[in-house]
Amino acid sequence: MTQTPQLSVEGASIVDRGAAVQIRWSNGETARFHGFWLRDNAQDTRTRDPGNGQRLLSMSDLDTGARVTQVKRDGGTLLFELSDNGPSLRFDSDWLLARRYDRGGTNRTGWVDDRVRLWGSDTPHAVSKATFASLAQDKRALLSWLKAFRANGVALSANGPQRKGAVEEMVSWFGFVKETNYGRTFDVRSVAEPTNLAFSKQGLLPHTDNPYRDPQPTLQLLYCIENSADGGDSIVVDGFQVATALRDEDPGAFLLLTRYCARFEYFGSQNVYLNSRVPLIELTADGELRAVRMNNRSAAATLDVPFDVMTEYYRAYAKFESMLSESRFAQTFSLAPGDCFMVDNTRVLHSRTGFASGGSRWLEGCYADRDGLYSKLAVLEKEVA
Amino acid sequence: MTQTPQLSVEGASIVDRGAAVQIRWSNGETARFHGFWLRDNAQDTRTRDPGNGQRLLSMSDLDTGARVTQVKRDGGTLLFELSDNGPSLRFDSDWLLARRYDRGGTNRTGWVDDRVRLWGSDTPHAVSKATFASLAQDKRALLSWLKAFRANGVALSANGPQRKGAVEEMVSWFGFVKETNYGRTFDVRSVAEPTNLAFSKQGLLPHTDNPYRDPQPTLQLLYCIENSADGGDSIVVDGFQVATALRDEDPGAFLLLTRYCARFEYFGSQNVYLNSRVPLIELTADGELRAVRMNNRSAAATLDVPFDVMTEYYRAYAKFESMLSESRFAQTFSLAPGDCFMVDNTRVLHSRTGFASGGSRWLEGCYADRDGLYSKLAVLEKEVA
Repeated sequence: MTQTPQLSVEGASIVDRGAAVQIRWSNGETARFHGFWLRDNAQDTRTRDPGNGQRLLSMSDLDTGARVTQVKRDGGTLLFELSDNGPSLRFDSDWLLARRYDRGGTNRTGWVDDRVRLWGSDTPHAVSKATFASLAQDKRALLSWLKAFRANGVALSANGPQRKGAVEEMVSWFGFVKETNYGRTFDVRSVAEPTNLAFSKQGLLPHTDNPYRDPQPTLQLLYCIENSADGGDSIVVDGFQVATALRDEDPGAFLLLTRYCARFEYFGSQNVYLNSRVPLIELTADGELRAVRMNNRSAAATLDVPFDVMTEYYRAYAKFESMLSESRFAQTFSLAPGDCFMVDNTRVLHSRTGFASGGSRWLEGCYADRDGLYSKLAVLEKEVA
Repeated sequence: MTQTPQLSVEGASIVDRGAAVQIRWSNGETARFHGFWLRDNAQDTRTRDPGNGQRLLSMSDLDTGARVTQVKRDGGTLLFELSDNGPSLRFDSDWLLARRYDRGGTNRTGWVDDRVRLWGSDTPHAVSKATFASLAQDKRALLSWLKAFRANGVALSANGPQRKGAVEEMVSWFGFVKETNYGRTFDVRSVAEPTNLAFSKQGLLPHTDNPYRDPQPTLQLLYCIENSADGGDSIVVDGFQVATALRDEDPGAFLLLTRYCARFEYFGSQNVYLNSRVPLIELTADGELRAVRMNNRSAAATLDVPFDVMTEYYRAYAKFESMLSESRFAQTFSLAPGDCFMVDNTRVLHSRTGFASGGSRWLEGCYADRDGLYSKLAVLEKEVA
């Protein structure tokens, strides 16, 4: 919901034979609202619990045939009477302006929210950075870091303590650890017989984590505790930017990856057999980019594409995977001990270059979910405003 | 993946000018497989890490133009040579049978997985029951309980300890607690000024929990510690069954609820502002029923439906909500202290009748996720087989 300045209402009239009202604000915006929609969203104590704000109506309480019989302006407030014998309705005109659903046109397939900022290799400040100490102590610093994270899907904290557990402390600033079979946190360091290739020294392709999990973790943090190895640079890629580029450069390939499900699986550890059936590019019901998934290591056999489409699907898959590795999309940085980067695991892919045998590299990883982070951000926005 | 008995191969031949092979099994099934698909799914050590089974290929290693140059049968095994100069390919014929993607026809919108069993009020054993002790101690009992849960989206455990913490013990049998702003677990008991109407004495409409969270918790457990109140019976409803009935009885209404996003929000506690934009009936990219959401208490203003569609959308919403309360879909039971029911929160709705002021009713609730449960189930299926 975009914040809008207080605007006056220039006109309000009953239209569609009483089915709706039309409002005109002083900035020239106009919008219609149905009578039953206004009743449904009333703020009175018959409609909302006065204590916790929860909605008390069920849909059977609503009459979609109700007519608007009167509309009055009273400063920044609008008053409505309906034919359903319910109480008068009172709305703040700015509240209505922010919720006008009467808009022309439709969004283009693969649209993104206004607050999302797509980025590539040459976008400045794509990976915003703040110190661990400022984030721990300063609400405003945390607010702007979280806001940048919502825009970019990635953010970096620096100069934190060089010890295990610091990553869990970070999660506690805005949410809760998502525990999995890997534990509450997990160590990413090279070992001789890795249960997962992430624990080897080899470079990794840009990937999202745990696509074999449904629901998958929406946040991932990787906290550097030691790093004296040559190489092992971190690379992040905006999957929404690449998906958008694929849509523009090869619309047919984009559609195939949104239309059919891929499969992922993981059975590297004892007593674990995870698998999922999910598209590589996921759209919401109304075409918003919802998630990008890519992980060559845990890709399972593709079973959900018709025989006659399979060749084209593979070409689309290969093209998308290859685009995700193009330098025009990558931001690269190296992690010093005490640094941590966080990604939106439904959008931003990460990878690393290979590293040499000498020296050691030890990251502590942790999963969490985005709902708590967005809640914290909304609360901070209110507090600081 | 359905387990199939060992079947012999009756024929295997190169088709489509080398692009694919066609296999005929002794049960009459036939299917084609592309050469590049076989290469992609090879089990050799160039393709798969011998230790952890993870895939080593990237899509750029594959040649979708590769031709099959030779096919041979060797007992239950099939051998293929490809024109891409890679090593010979060897597949178990049953493995291929279980993964034949070459099938005619398409699934109907709103289809469900073969392992899902839709149920209504008169379906026997829709809510399968086992004792807490047997589930804690006996692998086979746990296996069949989890299998029934996968089929029905609901299951009941009985005669457990009457104390807090038992619900977390249950989750440890198959997965991990999903902590939220409500805590690792939360008490559902009546209080004077509830932060959530669930903590009042009033009856609740059938609902799924936390639709304002994205990702939402996929499992919910409600464990009864005390119950001496009159009323407060538990009701569960198979949301997939009701969505399927809506599709059959009013296809237009079904489509509207899958096509547009609803919004949910929660701000009943301090420092929490959760909100989501998700459809009431969610389908996968290829039309499988993925989730049903309904919660009149946390419904927010509908903003994502065009003005000209809003009236029909509300009618569809009202119809679906009303169908969810029809007795033909409901299974009712009462919880004794030590009983716990678990639901798939993306499919099965729960509700309760109101209860009297006398007596006390205390449930401990807990959220978890389904990925761990399905992993445990797959591991047990393998162990017991």
